[in-house]
Amino acid sequence: MDKQLSPFERGDKLPEVFSVHFDGDTYLSMLVPDNSPLKVPIGNVTFAPGSKNHWHIHPGGQILLATAGCGWYQAEGESPRRLKPGDVVEILPGVKHWHGAAQNSWFSHLAIETGASAGPAQWLEPVPDEVYQALEGQR
Amino acid sequence: MDKQLSPFERGDKLPEVFSVHFDGDTYLSMLVPDNSPLKVPIGNVTFAPGSKNHWHIHPGGQILLATAGCGWYQAEGESPRRLKPGDVVEILPGVKHWHGAAQNSWFSHLAIETGASAGPAQWLEPVPDEVYQALEGQR
Repeated sequence: MDKQLSPFERGDKLPEVFSVHFDGDTYLSMLVPDNSPLKVPIGNVTFAPGSKNHWHIHPGGQILLATAGCGWYQAEGESPRRLKPGDVVEILPGVKHWHGAAQNSWFSHLAIETGASAGPAQWLEPVPDEVYQALEGQR
Repeated sequence: MDKQLSPFERGDKLPEVFSVHFDGDTYLSMLVPDNSPLKVPIGNVTFAPGSKNHWHIHPGGQILLATAGCGWYQAEGESPRRLKPGDVVEILPGVKHWHGAAQNSWFSHLAIETGASAGPAQWLEPVPDEVYQALEGQR
């Protein structure tokens, strides 16, 4: 994937407050800021090939809209789901999950924070390398 | 523009309950339905060249994320704003506005409903043809 296929700006690498919860290089451009009166923050998140975030929980939920490249989403207790442009993931409040790029592809998604007043993400343990690497056999 | 450049499904023509408030052919694919527990409905809206909606107000506000083609957005009392892929429009609750395609281009945007519990859009008068046609001089 050409990372420029997403129409949205890639932005800068994640600030350290977030990047400690990610493995590999990830970029963030806030399209609707946290302090917008509309109270639905939206970020364009771009994962370099092989990068991903740690397991985490959004107390108010989140919506992912995949825009470019290939990636993965997994909710605890469910099979990993391969994401391609146009795919939608509704993540209900309290659901433990992770997401990121495929090993050999950039991946971009919009991250739409729902119920933002419920508070920030709760970050948990990393996804083990062997678990992530085994996903590619599921292409 | 090739209308397929948006990664999201185009969907069907608007149902009549909406299309009476639009001039020209417009298509809608709901990506996150109105009844989602996340309470942030999201639609992919695709305007055929020259199509647009009437002036209207969202009691809870709306966010537009332009994904493909060229279009227009105008809030009452403000200059029309030409929209291209990657552009973001935050529409605060109660702001009277309209949006649509450029005369010679398809246009797609995501429409994200904020404050959905405030109620449905209030539809108002059409944009006069001469006002819309004059916009192209502003390219």
